[in-house]
Amino acid sequence: MANKKFYGLGTTLSPIRKFFAYGLEKAKEVGAENVYDFSIGNPSIPAPALVNETIEDLAHNYDSVKLHGYSVAAGHESTRRAIADNLNERFNAGATADRIFCTCGCNPALIITGKALAESEEDEIIVLAPFFPEYRVIFGASGAQVRVVAADERDFQINFGELEKTICKNTIAVVVNSPNNPSGVVYTEETLKKMAELLKARAEEYGHPIYIIADEPYRELVYGEVKVPYIPDIYANTIICYSWSKSLSLPGERLGYIFVPPQCEDGDVIYACLRGAAREVGSVCPPALIQKVVEKCVGCEPDLAAYDENRQLLYDSLTEMGYEMAKPDGAFYMFVKAPNGDAAAFSEKAMKEQNLLVVPGTGFGCPGYFRLSYCVSGDMIRRSLPAFRAMIDSY
Amino acid sequence: MANKKFYGLGTTLSPIRKFFAYGLEKAKEVGAENVYDFSIGNPSIPAPALVNETIEDLAHNYDSVKLHGYSVAAGHESTRRAIADNLNERFNAGATADRIFCTCGCNPALIITGKALAESEEDEIIVLAPFFPEYRVIFGASGAQVRVVAADERDFQINFGELEKTICKNTIAVVVNSPNNPSGVVYTEETLKKMAELLKARAEEYGHPIYIIADEPYRELVYGEVKVPYIPDIYANTIICYSWSKSLSLPGERLGYIFVPPQCEDGDVIYACLRGAAREVGSVCPPALIQKVVEKCVGCEPDLAAYDENRQLLYDSLTEMGYEMAKPDGAFYMFVKAPNGDAAAFSEKAMKEQNLLVVPGTGFGCPGYFRLSYCVSGDMIRRSLPAFRAMIDSY
Repeated sequence: MANKKFYGLGTTLSPIRKFFAYGLEKAKEVGAENVYDFSIGNPSIPAPALVNETIEDLAHNYDSVKLHGYSVAAGHESTRRAIADNLNERFNAGATADRIFCTCGCNPALIITGKALAESEEDEIIVLAPFFPEYRVIFGASGAQVRVVAADERDFQINFGELEKTICKNTIAVVVNSPNNPSGVVYTEETLKKMAELLKARAEEYGHPIYIIADEPYRELVYGEVKVPYIPDIYANTIICYSWSKSLSLPGERLGYIFVPPQCEDGDVIYACLRGAAREVGSVCPPALIQKVVEKCVGCEPDLAAYDENRQLLYDSLTEMGYEMAKPDGAFYMFVKAPNGDAAAFSEKAMKEQNLLVVPGTGFGCPGYFRLSYCVSGDMIRRSLPAFRAMIDSY
Repeated sequence: MANKKFYGLGTTLSPIRKFFAYGLEKAKEVGAENVYDFSIGNPSIPAPALVNETIEDLAHNYDSVKLHGYSVAAGHESTRRAIADNLNERFNAGATADRIFCTCGCNPALIITGKALAESEEDEIIVLAPFFPEYRVIFGASGAQVRVVAADERDFQINFGELEKTICKNTIAVVVNSPNNPSGVVYTEETLKKMAELLKARAEEYGHPIYIIADEPYRELVYGEVKVPYIPDIYANTIICYSWSKSLSLPGERLGYIFVPPQCEDGDVIYACLRGAAREVGSVCPPALIQKVVEKCVGCEPDLAAYDENRQLLYDSLTEMGYEMAKPDGAFYMFVKAPNGDAAAFSEKAMKEQNLLVVPGTGFGCPGYFRLSYCVSGDMIRRSLPAFRAMIDSY
């Protein structure tokens, strides 16, 4: 007398959560300073000062009824206008408030987009390994089939040989997550152009559009000279899903949006479908106070120095020890090759013998790699290095 | 190349929104003081002072990374414990944190509950007219059939003759919304006991539980000596959905919960299914700052004096003019009989001739009645009385 599928989903702990939970328990036993937890992607730098100043100001000075009242379903028009203005300044995006739909975080943004596009269970949405494990639930919610394209383990750009074989007449969308969770890799302009050509040719062949769903919460988390290309400039039929979880360090506040760019085919129809799908998941009128905060802080930039220091320290230390990984240019993740190719065994051993918590890549579609989240303290990284050394020495 | 069902949902303006939007436009033309808008259920009393004080204090003094970081999917344990303690104090509910699942408002709470209970499209969820029109979308999302039981227009308690005919072996749940939107009626203990007996007998006959889904955002909005019975004391298989939208005047902040009481059959299984269904709608880790606010303010009581004054003024004035309605003991709605029984025509005429915005009951399952939301200023009510008078005189 209850839904079996959801029982399964509700009782399966994600591998990320499993390691995280172990760490919390272990810390009670051996002390938090002796547990090296690289499992979770919770930002470790505080929100920009303006965020908390704005919250205080609004709570103190703004009319409470207006501040905490319902916005319209898509979010306050003033908030959507501020988002559009910011996109236009940065990318000359041609964005307008009526093509932005604010959501309770990026997770429902992706769910809503999948549901808006999918019409039947024959439809297929392609995800590119390595990918965020929850994608199976997120895009599965649309009723479409989720198809996985294996990773190109040379550089974690796109495996075009596999992608060409996987796209078919049932393909309605390809999910692009760059900067990527878990690899930290940023897709190059060359990669995206090659994908755009392939999708255009296939869309023409099949007689229907194939959309890119761009999952971009890490867009602003990019280091050095690397640039994240603006995908609609390369491929018109792109729908962008975003949140401020990472860029403003507000993951708990659940505010994101979907943007249907003007160049997107059937854009008005898709936007209407988003509105409808949002009703079915109940992600309407997202958190009102935080909308007002983002309206004011949309131009704030994250302070990336701490992440970048962590990235350099960890990358240099681990590669010097002999670990192999693709160059992590963005987000706050590294995806490291397990010394003997079995990341599940490596992760278990690291946890049990070294109190070192990393997440095996199995759920990400790459069982030979493990993920490190380096949104942690530099101190912890330094303390953890002997554990990494002991691990690789044991192989 | 997009989902037709969602296109329909996304392009259909709710009747409530239609009248509300007309009012906004009309106000530009004739002045806001000459539009009498009773269409929307947005609380008009501010949040208790402690709410905004707590927000300021947290933004100023609390660690930003912790404040705005992800909570676990079900919400902070400390928040859920505070909710459980409050339920236990007030209702001796036997509540524990591990049976409370916090959601992004009551809307996803209801969607998640429907999905958790429904297994096939033969399953049926019963809603009792008059009902919140969005129930069709909310419970339809589960894939189950939504069955409507016609209203008992004598007093807007439950129409047991119709309910008895509608419950069948496919019935998995009955939705109870008391204090009721749109009637403002509170179901009596007698009504609920009668329903409990009926459901128990049928559950036994069919060999499976029939759940009550108690949609209770208006629980604290009740006037005079009237009490809202605590349903799990009357019927064990009750699942409670709640939000602070109305009681703390925080509708825009999107925080609610689902509570599976200890006496509920298969409660652990249902709770696990809720967890799973929440993943499929992406309503996980609800707004973190507001969780902390509720943790502190869960015992705050709404200042009902303003609503009560409005209620008395409107009820006395309208009944004196000859309008008929059931006694509105709770929420901030009245459900008034259209003078000639055609509320759609009445509402159109009131809008066009008097700038008086009321919502016809068609979508609520009662086409002979219109809804008034009296969460407005007392001044507006006084100014609107001649318009109500002119309307009834014209029949």
